[in-house]
Amino acid sequence: MSYTHSITVKLAWADAVQRTREALAGQGFGILSEIDVRSTFEEKLGPDAADAVGDYVILGACNPGLASRALAGEPTLGALLPCNVVVRRALDASETTIDVIDPQTMVQLSDSAAVREVADDAEARLQKALALLGAAGTSSD
Amino acid sequence: MSYTHSITVKLAWADAVQRTREALAGQGFGILSEIDVRSTFEEKLGPDAADAVGDYVILGACNPGLASRALAGEPTLGALLPCNVVVRRALDASETTIDVIDPQTMVQLSDSAAVREVADDAEARLQKALALLGAAGTSSD
Repeated sequence: MSYTHSITVKLAWADAVQRTREALAGQGFGILSEIDVRSTFEEKLGPDAADAVGDYVILGACNPGLASRALAGEPTLGALLPCNVVVRRALDASETTIDVIDPQTMVQLSDSAAVREVADDAEARLQKALALLGAAGTSSD
Repeated sequence: MSYTHSITVKLAWADAVQRTREALAGQGFGILSEIDVRSTFEEKLGPDAADAVGDYVILGACNPGLASRALAGEPTLGALLPCNVVVRRALDASETTIDVIDPQTMVQLSDSAAVREVADDAEARLQKALALLGAAGTSSD
């Protein structure tokens, strides 16, 4: 079972992160949180753990209109928000992978009709963002 | 199907948020992200949407050692991290609800042995944090 839609692009690290932000913004997603996993591991666990994870950021993407509708239908749903988008690259790799959470995982975990409807909308937008990123490099899924 | 463990406490809003942070820290979880959903909705959607969601924050809790082990076993798992903890209260309510993501949802979505092992550890820690919060107020779930 896969819980992400993924794509691998031949882009430099900083360029891949920037284009991911832009592709998400183009689909109405703001970035509400950003976790630099490599830096966190470096600080808390040391350089070996940081090198093992490589370049790795988790962007928390949120479309406020969709989130508002989902939370009206199911107040606990914030535990599954925002929609996470991982941008990651093994140490010194020339390709970068982008993993977007599949919003249908929310549907698997919830039985709210509002969540189902919002997940379909969110998935369509996230797939469009990934397609745009794919146009910038070689893709896989 | 429930994807959270929840508790309702008779604490003022700011006190509930602060005690939640402390309970998580006591179990080795740092807060890597914090999303103020009410403020975001106020800014992006206006006061009616903000009032509808009430006081609502999403804390992204991460135990770096556990996260490192999980990501070594499954690099895409960052799409399900950090462990979200929601602190929420309907407008002017006297009680505050804390919803902690059930890490077993990761096990449902992944078939990695490393993820299963880490999820068990994370769940035990999060349950301890909730129990501590329950001692500060009336509980449910």
